[in-house]
Amino acid sequence: MNIDKIMNNVKDKHQLIHSITNYVSVNDCANIILASGASPIMADEALEMDDITNISHGLNINIGMLNQNKEKSIYLACYKANNLHHPILLDPVGVGASSYRQHFVSSLLKSIHFDVIRGNLSEIKSLVENSLTYGVDTIETITQDNLDEVIEFIKIVAKQFHCIIAISSVIDVISNGNQTYVIYNGHPYMSKITGSGCMLSALTTTYITANKNNLLEACALSFLIMAIAGEKAYDKMIDNKVGTSSYRNYLIDYVSLLTSDDIRKEANYEIR
Amino acid sequence: MNIDKIMNNVKDKHQLIHSITNYVSVNDCANIILASGASPIMADEALEMDDITNISHGLNINIGMLNQNKEKSIYLACYKANNLHHPILLDPVGVGASSYRQHFVSSLLKSIHFDVIRGNLSEIKSLVENSLTYGVDTIETITQDNLDEVIEFIKIVAKQFHCIIAISSVIDVISNGNQTYVIYNGHPYMSKITGSGCMLSALTTTYITANKNNLLEACALSFLIMAIAGEKAYDKMIDNKVGTSSYRNYLIDYVSLLTSDDIRKEANYEIR
Amino acid sequence: MNIDKIMNNVKDKHQLIHSITNYVSVNDCANIILASGASPIMADEALEMDDITNISHGLNINIGMLNQNKEKSIYLACYKANNLHHPILLDPVGVGASSYRQHFVSSLLKSIHFDVIRGNLSEIKSLVENSLTYGVDTIETITQDNLDEVIEFIKIVAKQFHCIIAISSVIDVISNGNQTYVIYNGHPYMSKITGSGCMLSALTTTYITANKNNLLEACALSFLIMAIAGEKAYDKMIDNKVGTSSYRNYLIDYVSLLTSDDIRKEANYEIR
Repeated sequence: MNIDKIMNNVKDKHQLIHSITNYVSVNDCANIILASGASPIMADEALEMDDITNISHGLNINIGMLNQNKEKSIYLACYKANNLHHPILLDPVGVGASSYRQHFVSSLLKSIHFDVIRGNLSEIKSLVENSLTYGVDTIETITQDNLDEVIEFIKIVAKQFHCIIAISSVIDVISNGNQTYVIYNGHPYMSKITGSGCMLSALTTTYITANKNNLLEACALSFLIMAIAGEKAYDKMIDNKVGTSSYRNYLIDYVSLLTSDDIRKEANYEIR
Repeated sequence: MNIDKIMNNVKDKHQLIHSITNYVSVNDCANIILASGASPIMADEALEMDDITNISHGLNINIGMLNQNKEKSIYLACYKANNLHHPILLDPVGVGASSYRQHFVSSLLKSIHFDVIRGNLSEIKSLVENSLTYGVDTIETITQDNLDEVIEFIKIVAKQFHCIIAISSVIDVISNGNQTYVIYNGHPYMSKITGSGCMLSALTTTYITANKNNLLEACALSFLIMAIAGEKAYDKMIDNKVGTSSYRNYLIDYVSLLTSDDIRKEANYEIR
Repeated sequence: MNIDKIMNNVKDKHQLIHSITNYVSVNDCANIILASGASPIMADEALEMDDITNISHGLNINIGMLNQNKEKSIYLACYKANNLHHPILLDPVGVGASSYRQHFVSSLLKSIHFDVIRGNLSEIKSLVENSLTYGVDTIETITQDNLDEVIEFIKIVAKQFHCIIAISSVIDVISNGNQTYVIYNGHPYMSKITGSGCMLSALTTTYITANKNNLLEACALSFLIMAIAGEKAYDKMIDNKVGTSSYRNYLIDYVSLLTSDDIRKEANYEIR
C-alpha cells in the first residue's frame, strides 16, 4: 500500500466532499474531513443539489435521521454524482431499524451505483435479501473464528453490488470481490461515542475521492487511520484520566496528526 | 437509595433510548446516553416512528427547536410508547417562549401520559394554568428560603399530571406527589454551556427506562450524577485553566467515569 | 476603542440572541454566545418566529444548509426584527455555491435592512453584481499588497447596502463606508475546523446587539476577540500536542476567558 501517495493526494488536492448526513454527527463529520486535509460541504436542500454536486468532488450518503426532505436530495445528488463520475459512498445507518429505511435503501441501490458501501455487519446483512443462505446469519461480531465465512460473504455482496463493501467490527473487512483487506487495528472504546461510524464514512469518502484510481487501497487506508487514531486516543484518555467526550476529541485530533510513518509503524492488517 | 442497583441496571441492560430532540444538543444527548452505558437513537421522521419505538425501550421528548415535521413524529412515538408501556420523559424546553410551544405542549399533555416532566421552574410553572394561585409566581430560583413553597407546588403539579415532576435550579426538586427529593449538588457553571438541561433529560430518560419499577429513585440518581459531574468538571476546568468548551467535555467525561462510590461520597440530598 | 465598556455591555445585559443557522455549527454558535456572556436561542420554525423575535434582542441569520422551511422563518424573523429595531447580522455562507442561495440572498437584501453583513471575500464579492468593475475580482486573500483596493471596495459595498461590511481573511477588514478597521490578529488554523466563521457571526451579533449605538467598534472588537482566541488556542494546541478538535475547544474556551486586558495587550489593528 502506497501510504504516502494516498495521504498526499488527500492533502494536496484539497477537494470538496459533499455529505448528506444526520444532524447528530454532522459537525464531527465536517471536522474529520477538515482534519484529513479536504473541505466539507453538508448541504441537503433539494433545490441546490445540482449546483452543489457540480462544485464537489465526492459524495457521502448517510441515512441516519433520514427524512422525506432528504430522500429527494439524496436522489438528486446521487444521480448527478453518478453522471459526473464522482465517487459515492453509502452508509446505510440502522437500515434494519425500520421498514422506511429498508425500502429507501433498497430502491436507492437499484438506481444508483455506489463505489463503497460502509456499515457494520448487521447493516450489510440487511442489504442482502437472503443472508441466511450465506452462512453469516448468526455472526454478530467479526473475529478470527468466523473470518473465513465473513470474507466469503463480503466477496459475494461486493460482486452483487459491483462495489467495495467495507464492514466495521472488532476486525474490519473491506473487499472489492477479489481482494480483501482484513484490519486488526481499532479499539472497542470507539463504540462509546456517537458518530464514530459516520466519521469513518466521511473519512473514507474523502480518501476514495482523492484516489479514484485506487479505491480499494484508499478505502483500506482510511480504515487504518481511523482505527489507529482510535487506539492512540484511548491511550491518551487513560493517561489524562478523562472520559468519553475527551476521547471523541482525541480521536479527531489524531486523524489530524497521524503521519504516514505513524501508520506504517502501527498498521496491523493483511490482504486476503 | 440503592445506587449500585440503579446504575448497574443502566449499564447491564444496554437499552436503546429514543430521543426526539433539538439539533443544538442532539450530539451531546447521544453522547451522554452512551456515557451512561445505554445506546441512543435520535430518529425523528414520522414514517419510521412506529418501527423505531418498537425496538426502543424508553422515549425522551424535547421541544427545543420544535417544528411542524417533528410535531407529528412526537405524537406517533408517544402514542406507541404509551401502548408499549415504555417510560417517556417530556422536556418542555422554553415552553413559555412562544404560543406555538405552549399550545403544542398543552395538547400533548391531554393525550399522552408522561412518566417524568423535567424542566426549570419557569417551564414547569408554564404547564399550570393558574400558577399565580400556588404562591410560586415570583420565585425564579429555588433556594432554602422558598423551598417549602416550591415543594408544596411541585406536589400539586405531580398529582395533577400523575407523573414525576423534576425541576432543575440552584436546588433541584423532584417529586411524585408524595415523596420529594431535594438535591443540593450542582454548579452554576452548568448554565454557561448549551444543552446541560437537554443532556440531563436524556440521562434521566435512560435511568428511568432501566429502572421502571423504581422511577423516583432512578430520576433522583440521574440528577445526582449530572450535578456531581458538574461540580467535578468545574474543579477540573479551573485546575487546567481552560474555559466553557472544555467544561462541556469534562461534564460528559465525568458522567462516563463516576462510580457508585463517587456518588455516595459526594451526594448531598434529602427526602421530604 | 472602549474595550471595557463594549465587553461589559455584553456581560451585564445578558441579552437573548436569536440565531437561524445551519445544523453543522449550531451547537458551537450557541456555546460561543454563552461564552461571551449572553444567552442563545436557535429556534427556526416559522410558526413561532413572531414570539421568539419579540423576546429576543438581536438576530443572526446564517444561510449555511438553507432549506425551504428556513426561508420563510428567516423572512418572518427579519421583518419583525427590523420593525423592533433589533440589530440583524447576515452571514451569506457559500452564497456563490448555488443559484438557490444566490437568489435567496439577493431577494432578502431587497426587503430587509441588515446592520452587518459578515463573510469571506468571495461571499461579499458575490453580493455585488459587477464586482469586476471594482478591481478586486482576482483577489482571493486580503494581504498588505491588495489592502488598498479591498478598502476601496468594502467602502463602496458598505455604502450600497447602508450597513457594516465585515470581511474575514488573513487580514480582516470591517467598514461602515466611512471608517474602516483593519485587523492583523488571527491564525490560519481557524480554517482547519468547521464553523469558525459561523461562530464569529454569532459573536458579532451578540456584540452589536449589546452596543446598538456603537456598532462599528462592537463589530471590530468581536473580530479581535475571535482572532486573539484563535492565536492563543493555536499556542495551547501545540503545547499540549493535540489536534484540530482540541483546537476548536480551546478557541471557545478563550472566548470565555479573554479579558479586556488580554485584548489590549494582544490587539494588532489600525483604523483607516
